Amino acid sequence: MDTVLSATPIPAGFSPIAAPPGFVRFCGGFHFHDELPIIGVRIGGHLLNSVGIVHGGFLATLADTAFGLVFKRQFGLDVPPVTVNLNLDYLSAVREDDWLEAHVQVLKFGSSFANADCQLKVGDRVVLRSSGIFTVWKGRRPMAG
Amino acid sequence: MDTVLSATPIPAGFSPIAAPPGFVRFCGGFHFHDELPIIGVRIGGHLLNSVGIVHGGFLATLADTAFGLVFKRQFGLDVPPVTVNLNLDYLSAVREDDWLEAHVQVLKFGSSFANADCQLKVGDRVVLRSSGIFTVWKGRRPMAG
Amino acid sequence: MDTVLSATPIPAGFSPIAAPPGFVRFCGGFHFHDELPIIGVRIGGHLLNSVGIVHGGFLATLADTAFGLVFKRQFGLDVPPVTVNLNLDYLSAVREDDWLEAHVQVLKFGSSFANADCQLKVGDRVVLRSSGIFTVWKGRRPMAG
Amino acid sequence: MDTVLSATPIPAGFSPIAAPPGFVRFCGGFHFHDELPIIGVRIGGHLLNSVGIVHGGFLATLADTAFGLVFKRQFGLDVPPVTVNLNLDYLSAVREDDWLEAHVQVLKFGSSFANADCQLKVGDRVVLRSSGIFTVWKGRRPMAG
Repeated sequence: MDTVLSATPIPAGFSPIAAPPGFVRFCGGFHFHDELPIIGVRIGGHLLNSVGIVHGGFLATLADTAFGLVFKRQFGLDVPPVTVNLNLDYLSAVREDDWLEAHVQVLKFGSSFANADCQLKVGDRVVLRSSGIFTVWKGRRPMAG
Repeated sequence: MDTVLSATPIPAGFSPIAAPPGFVRFCGGFHFHDELPIIGVRIGGHLLNSVGIVHGGFLATLADTAFGLVFKRQFGLDVPPVTVNLNLDYLSAVREDDWLEAHVQVLKFGSSFANADCQLKVGDRVVLRSSGIFTVWKGRRPMAG
Repeated sequence: MDTVLSATPIPAGFSPIAAPPGFVRFCGGFHFHDELPIIGVRIGGHLLNSVGIVHGGFLATLADTAFGLVFKRQFGLDVPPVTVNLNLDYLSAVREDDWLEAHVQVLKFGSSFANADCQLKVGDRVVLRSSGIFTVWKGRRPMAG
Repeated sequence: MDTVLSATPIPAGFSPIAAPPGFVRFCGGFHFHDELPIIGVRIGGHLLNSVGIVHGGFLATLADTAFGLVFKRQFGLDVPPVTVNLNLDYLSAVREDDWLEAHVQVLKFGSSFANADCQLKVGDRVVLRSSGIFTVWKGRRPMAG
């Protein structure tokens, strides 16, 4: 276990996210940078697909989760905005043990919509370019009960 | 347990997929229709997000997986084509215990690209509209070791 | 002129659109099917790009215009809904003199959003697959003066 | 004419593009920055839609054209790469007489694909966020003759 931990350190500035029960906890191990709009995760073997690289669905999950976390922190929301559209361009493969970062940039936070970009990176290499459209809910929880 | 099983039957015509180790097995429980290009899954609580509906990342995973499975069966591929782009429009929420189906339609299977649409449905209700662009690999495994 | 006209007939069932001044009139020659959600146009040389096929920007214009026209007629709107997102997959080239059709399918017309698909076709060949997200305005003109 | 010219100056650093016959010349008036990957255009009344703002199809045309021009200059291509996908998020309206700029950033220029982002801006305001996927042709003209 010591060996595993020393082989996969978390970079300075990132703190683990207390994920709620459900899919994000299930995916496991997301970290939020304390100041920057960046989510990081160390890639485990449970995130791979049938040809041994990270599954595209996990990369979509990371981008979608990163959008929500950044919107919540940046605009003081209780719940993340609702995703209306995700567009994902896969540029390069991600492999086991990579430290993968999601860099979010909010472009608009309007009365009806919010728009943002997210690049997933391993080091300086962009592995996925994504953008999202979101609906901002005000004063009530979306689609609850 | 009997109660749970009887509450969540798998519709006739679907057979469970022997998922490889990794993210799809981790998500769990995909079924492939024996004749039609449809993947089905019964929604478990581990697929929800923080507001109690199915996580958008799981829906992306289901769409991406459904594209790959249909391409493999329809064109006799050993490995699924590589995803170049996924575009996902979220139309409606999916809830625990829903039987969710991914309906795939291949639009093009060319020498360089393949294009397909996928609608996720709960009954007749479209909950997600998606499309994908894929690269078709011929004669070798993509990005292998 | 007789020759040109006889070489480029408009198929039965289509009527010319009285386009307002501006970009659509500038592009020229859109026809709306009298019953079906289909817009048709005969391709002129002014719509080509530098390699002699139809410019991708014109195909985007046709798709966007077709979405608006179908929404207006199908839901009795005074003005078309506002486009929030367009996603366009280019599958095949379109050439001068082709009769090009935009086939629209509305997937959702909700209180906040509308979603639709549009396939551009030359005969049975799909040359562009597109989807759009729109905001439905109620009781006032969007972004007017 | 003097009045018109003085009312619509072209900012320093931009030179008019000698557009080939066809749709881009038809749209009219694109300018390329001499050093930066930016295309600019002064908005004329022929680019508006039925509610008096710039047509979404023209914004798509500008983005697609800007991608092609930047790829050609940056990588010394004879013809622009072929567009495989365009994704367009409309954030804000553009009006007559606005000076509109397309800012392109190339993310990848690989052996099979190229990926790029493009933001359309009026001053500092982002009015459209777009991304594109392109096929790079080597040694022959795409889809010619």
